[in-house]
Amino acid sequence: MRDYAIHLDPKKMPDYWYNITPDLPGPMEPPLHPATQQPLTADDLSPIFPMPLIEQEMSTEPQISIPGEIMDAYRLYRPTPLRRAYRLEQALGTPAKIYYKNESVCPGGSHKINTGIAQAYFNKQFGIHELTTETGAGQWGTALSIGCQMFGMHCTVYMVRVSYQQKPYRRTLIQTYGANVLASPSDTTESGRAFLADNPETTGSLGMAISEAVEVAVKSGGTTKYSLGSVLNHVMLHQSIIGLEALAQMESIGEYPDTVIGCCGGGSNFAGLAFPFYGDAKKRGATVDFIAVEPTSCPTLTRGLYAYDYGDTAKTTPLLLQFTLGHNFLPPGIHAGGLRYHGVAQQVAYLVRNNEMRAVAYPQNPVFAASVDFARHETIVPAPETGHAICAAVDEALKCKESGEAKTILFNLSGHGHFDMTAYEAYLSGKLQDYELDEEVLKKAEDAIPKVSA
Amino acid sequence: MRDYAIHLDPKKMPDYWYNITPDLPGPMEPPLHPATQQPLTADDLSPIFPMPLIEQEMSTEPQISIPGEIMDAYRLYRPTPLRRAYRLEQALGTPAKIYYKNESVCPGGSHKINTGIAQAYFNKQFGIHELTTETGAGQWGTALSIGCQMFGMHCTVYMVRVSYQQKPYRRTLIQTYGANVLASPSDTTESGRAFLADNPETTGSLGMAISEAVEVAVKSGGTTKYSLGSVLNHVMLHQSIIGLEALAQMESIGEYPDTVIGCCGGGSNFAGLAFPFYGDAKKRGATVDFIAVEPTSCPTLTRGLYAYDYGDTAKTTPLLLQFTLGHNFLPPGIHAGGLRYHGVAQQVAYLVRNNEMRAVAYPQNPVFAASVDFARHETIVPAPETGHAICAAVDEALKCKESGEAKTILFNLSGHGHFDMTAYEAYLSGKLQDYELDEEVLKKAEDAIPKVSA
Repeated sequence: MRDYAIHLDPKKMPDYWYNITPDLPGPMEPPLHPATQQPLTADDLSPIFPMPLIEQEMSTEPQISIPGEIMDAYRLYRPTPLRRAYRLEQALGTPAKIYYKNESVCPGGSHKINTGIAQAYFNKQFGIHELTTETGAGQWGTALSIGCQMFGMHCTVYMVRVSYQQKPYRRTLIQTYGANVLASPSDTTESGRAFLADNPETTGSLGMAISEAVEVAVKSGGTTKYSLGSVLNHVMLHQSIIGLEALAQMESIGEYPDTVIGCCGGGSNFAGLAFPFYGDAKKRGATVDFIAVEPTSCPTLTRGLYAYDYGDTAKTTPLLLQFTLGHNFLPPGIHAGGLRYHGVAQQVAYLVRNNEMRAVAYPQNPVFAASVDFARHETIVPAPETGHAICAAVDEALKCKESGEAKTILFNLSGHGHFDMTAYEAYLSGKLQDYELDEEVLKKAEDAIPKVSA
Repeated sequence: MRDYAIHLDPKKMPDYWYNITPDLPGPMEPPLHPATQQPLTADDLSPIFPMPLIEQEMSTEPQISIPGEIMDAYRLYRPTPLRRAYRLEQALGTPAKIYYKNESVCPGGSHKINTGIAQAYFNKQFGIHELTTETGAGQWGTALSIGCQMFGMHCTVYMVRVSYQQKPYRRTLIQTYGANVLASPSDTTESGRAFLADNPETTGSLGMAISEAVEVAVKSGGTTKYSLGSVLNHVMLHQSIIGLEALAQMESIGEYPDTVIGCCGGGSNFAGLAFPFYGDAKKRGATVDFIAVEPTSCPTLTRGLYAYDYGDTAKTTPLLLQFTLGHNFLPPGIHAGGLRYHGVAQQVAYLVRNNEMRAVAYPQNPVFAASVDFARHETIVPAPETGHAICAAVDEALKCKESGEAKTILFNLSGHGHFDMTAYEAYLSGKLQDYELDEEVLKKAEDAIPKVSA
């Protein structure tokens, strides 16, 4: 009898998050204030984030306890199953074993909820009544709206106007979960009105939406805070629940991965799975190949510059030492909206820079080919972002077929593609375009990034 | 610690289906041949269905073993979790315990796959290479395409033209799973060409799509068969896996339902949950309130005539003794497409007629109100069909609040609503219309149904 799903006893769900900071090979360079370029202090962040999250952002503790109320909320859908892709293995004819952590069963359909719940909770504890955020593809807006709903908080989502119009189903989903969704730029903020005055026909951008969401928090006088769904250390921390569970699940069947794979935009689902294995492998003296997968159209880790850069177009966020394609980079309109980010989490960047982890990039046609194959064999239709991880896992399994090695491959099935069927339609009808990064972009990035010595 | 999910050990998954036929209070009236009105024989069905399914259709065995290959396919997603709706209970302030069987985790997003896999398998065993079917809302077309994919068979889905155009995401999903999808009426069949000649602008109907799918099977000379996703005895049989699992799960926590609820169109998800509890309760001498829930716009069980009627508009299917609104009834365009059927499974009809089970009907606005409430507390966005079951479960729980009774309520969460967000959009923006059945319809039905003495 095949055990497709390896369930973790709910009583054994980890009750702490893993913090990679003390396990890093050396100290990371500090974030810098965007105006003064001096190392950032907790006070600099306090108008935007509540103190418990700022403390987590800066913590050097190896583990941070998960409060009981978050555990109870996690229990609504966690532990998520670890699955063995027997049917895909068979179709590929590979001696490799392919496992995936199925985060597509999470509320809202992606791993984002793991930090959505945590951020809502810690804000609520800090006396905050409302959270604001931005969303592009919509996964993060969905996740935060569910998190806020769970703790009786208001949620306002600034949704990039072009997504608001082109993805009405995502918008309706966020509204179903009780959040207020506004097309950005909107006339509800000063910055939004300025963007509209500049260009009444603008379709918006993540940069503009961030500006609006942050403005509402800053001007609220303390009742409202801003929430970010990736990039920051405390987001990687909350997502570590994925890898901690997978570790326990692999252990329960006497397995350990040779290869750990995740798609990588801001870095949160990749880090969520990979970081706990990184720490554990270090302790055991095991060698694990960690692979972050990105699109060739937005190859931050594989071709970006390692430098201090802003997180947003408007240069209002702290400067982080990271791989970047330049804060004013506008990636092509590929369907993996969650991977269209110029930068990446500083912790992921640091590990790739120090050759502790590596990155690969794929164009979207092979990604969708792998995704359709996966759907037909494993029955789950993956999100376009997730398809990148699948594509790399298939490639690694095919390498094993050639070499005869029976490697154990683990990847993060970070989300389903139920709200991305237009992308599948485009692929199936042969209309998907592949993109490679123009060399010009890197020159422009070099000109645009601030001159800070790393 | 709250156990939201009650998982069944995969080793304890039932390896048989439950057949209600021998447990019925008396013998059912036989299906009749549409032309001769004589009791139907196995031979009459053999041009359309393979013999193993015809045998199941007519079987009086109490249990039928599930073949190993179907068990292996089921194990990809089964056992599905039984869940306790703690958060919904709390929000309602009810002393009732609310449990739901979560079939929304099934491949394709609904319970339909349970019979999709079984039908594909038995056809394959019988030497069939291709299945044809019709689909309206799209759940069934999705399920059969996955079933065929699993056993390496071709699948052709005739999709009602208006759905083909209005639900491109469902169509793409079916194509992603490898099936050939045609807008019906199509020019690939004689009947389709006749419908188009009659009315080139027709938006199609389930009746027309059935005619095309059946024609392809009949004319194939034996390589191709037709497949139906509800109504028939063998479909109820395959869906019994839902109730058998739920029975084992309830038992594992020392619970037994006072009330069992499912939405009811053709009857398959309702029967799937309810029938095994019906047989079990009879054995134990327990009293269970079984509630089938339908829309007021298509109130087959609550207001239909109990009479022999055809399954399709074109009068090509066998005559079944059932509740019917007339085979030419065209229900209003409510969003619960799966509940827009003029008839119902004869076994469900028989049990309701004999007061062993009961039926209630709701308009769609309260159904969506309950669905949104459910989504906000339980995080799952239900299908519009499923919303009917939730609405009834909430009503039963609120009755308990009034009476102070701590009843145990169990309903079938038959599917998710990820491909039905336009319905939620319409509800949230106040644009949903409620319908009551026009008395005229029943008079017309009485005129149209064939004069057969039951």
